[in-house]
Amino acid sequence: MSTKEVKAGIIIIGNEILSGRTQDTNLAHLARVLNVWGIKITETRIIPDDESVIVDTVRHFSSAFDYVFTTGGIGPTHDDITSGCIAKAFHKKLIEHPDIARLIRSRPTSDEVMKSRLLMALIPEGAGLIDNPTGGPQGFYINNVYVMAGIPKVMQAMLSTLEDQLNGGLPVLSRSVTAFLGESQIATELGRLQQRYSVVDIGSYPFTRDGKYGTSIVMRCTDQKILDEVLQEACKLIENAGAVPENIHG
Amino acid sequence: MSTKEVKAGIIIIGNEILSGRTQDTNLAHLARVLNVWGIKITETRIIPDDESVIVDTVRHFSSAFDYVFTTGGIGPTHDDITSGCIAKAFHKKLIEHPDIARLIRSRPTSDEVMKSRLLMALIPEGAGLIDNPTGGPQGFYINNVYVMAGIPKVMQAMLSTLEDQLNGGLPVLSRSVTAFLGESQIATELGRLQQRYSVVDIGSYPFTRDGKYGTSIVMRCTDQKILDEVLQEACKLIENAGAVPENIHG
Repeated sequence: MSTKEVKAGIIIIGNEILSGRTQDTNLAHLARVLNVWGIKITETRIIPDDESVIVDTVRHFSSAFDYVFTTGGIGPTHDDITSGCIAKAFHKKLIEHPDIARLIRSRPTSDEVMKSRLLMALIPEGAGLIDNPTGGPQGFYINNVYVMAGIPKVMQAMLSTLEDQLNGGLPVLSRSVTAFLGESQIATELGRLQQRYSVVDIGSYPFTRDGKYGTSIVMRCTDQKILDEVLQEACKLIENAGAVPENIHG
Repeated sequence: MSTKEVKAGIIIIGNEILSGRTQDTNLAHLARVLNVWGIKITETRIIPDDESVIVDTVRHFSSAFDYVFTTGGIGPTHDDITSGCIAKAFHKKLIEHPDIARLIRSRPTSDEVMKSRLLMALIPEGAGLIDNPTGGPQGFYINNVYVMAGIPKVMQAMLSTLEDQLNGGLPVLSRSVTAFLGESQIATELGRLQQRYSVVDIGSYPFTRDGKYGTSIVMRCTDQKILDEVLQEACKLIENAGAVPENIHG
């Protein structure tokens, strides 16, 4: 385990997300899992099925972050262009990977359908495979880029196989507390608390429940001792503002 | 109404989205509404509460797209840095806007809380206001960048006031049809259909229902006549593959 911060960029590929047809849920799942593994998502881009945009984004993210994860565009139809774009981004040829081809050929079908299915066996030369516990074709990785399916169930299954392969840093721990107070009622004191604890990322998120305004304070840091101190301070700050700290998670 | 394609970039600002704590729903709402107004979302970036990243992204998007919409980071706490970053991106000073300040001052509170609330009146010099039908402080726009709240209810209310102000192109219309067929069973013919109708964006999305594999075909285009032709062809293609076209929307 590395003690430095390990950063990831996520690339979500698909016109269906940008058009609002499909609500993305892959980012939130990736974030929760990678966080436990000590990998912090630093930026996410949602981009269309457009070759030059995919190629440019993959190249930029691959050099900017420790890890890159992509979702979407690795199926058998004309709009599945991700594998070709990743190959192009790294100046590699697309080759038929024997293990994926064998899996696909193990399910007999007509010649035409088989030809379409075998498109899913084309990956960049030199890429390694990401297992697919749902039984479908594998994903792949090349350099620091991990290429997974867009279907949440399949993406989650593929991701689950990567835990031992990825080298994360210290996991980011979090604490949270809520209070029935408007954000502005604690804003000054919370700002001071953030200044005193610059290593802790303190977030303030308003909510309404039962017609009353409330605020969630979320604290994130790799150091448990410091985090627990800040949580105590946050509870005190809420009490000083005349409210009761609730839903304390820590 | 413009007859050329009008493009938008979306910037979702907030550590809470990148950490997986909060599931973003603003993109899908923006996409559905902007689409009806003839504005197509071309790229979305989800970025942290980090000044240099926000400033760079705003500048890049503002020059790359016709419109830019941001959500998040305009509240009264220390982690709300969006307004200052937008000012910096356009080399403007932050000034207290009298209309927002008047609204905030109309609700009496202690001096300290008022001071925090008035932070929400600070916007870049020269910016116009975006009404906030929920009754809270307004959002703002400067050049082609529209700056809105992150809370979905507030963002949606702000967006709803912009319809007459934005100049969209031809709305993108869509048609869809589903069939209980695997994607690979129609992949070849669907690819040919896409080649014949290059102005239509044809997407293929697998699903499972009642334990059976299915495929949704979604067609998007600004020309209704062409779109209806393609829908008919898609239905024929499904029948030729031995299945029944279902859930025809058009």
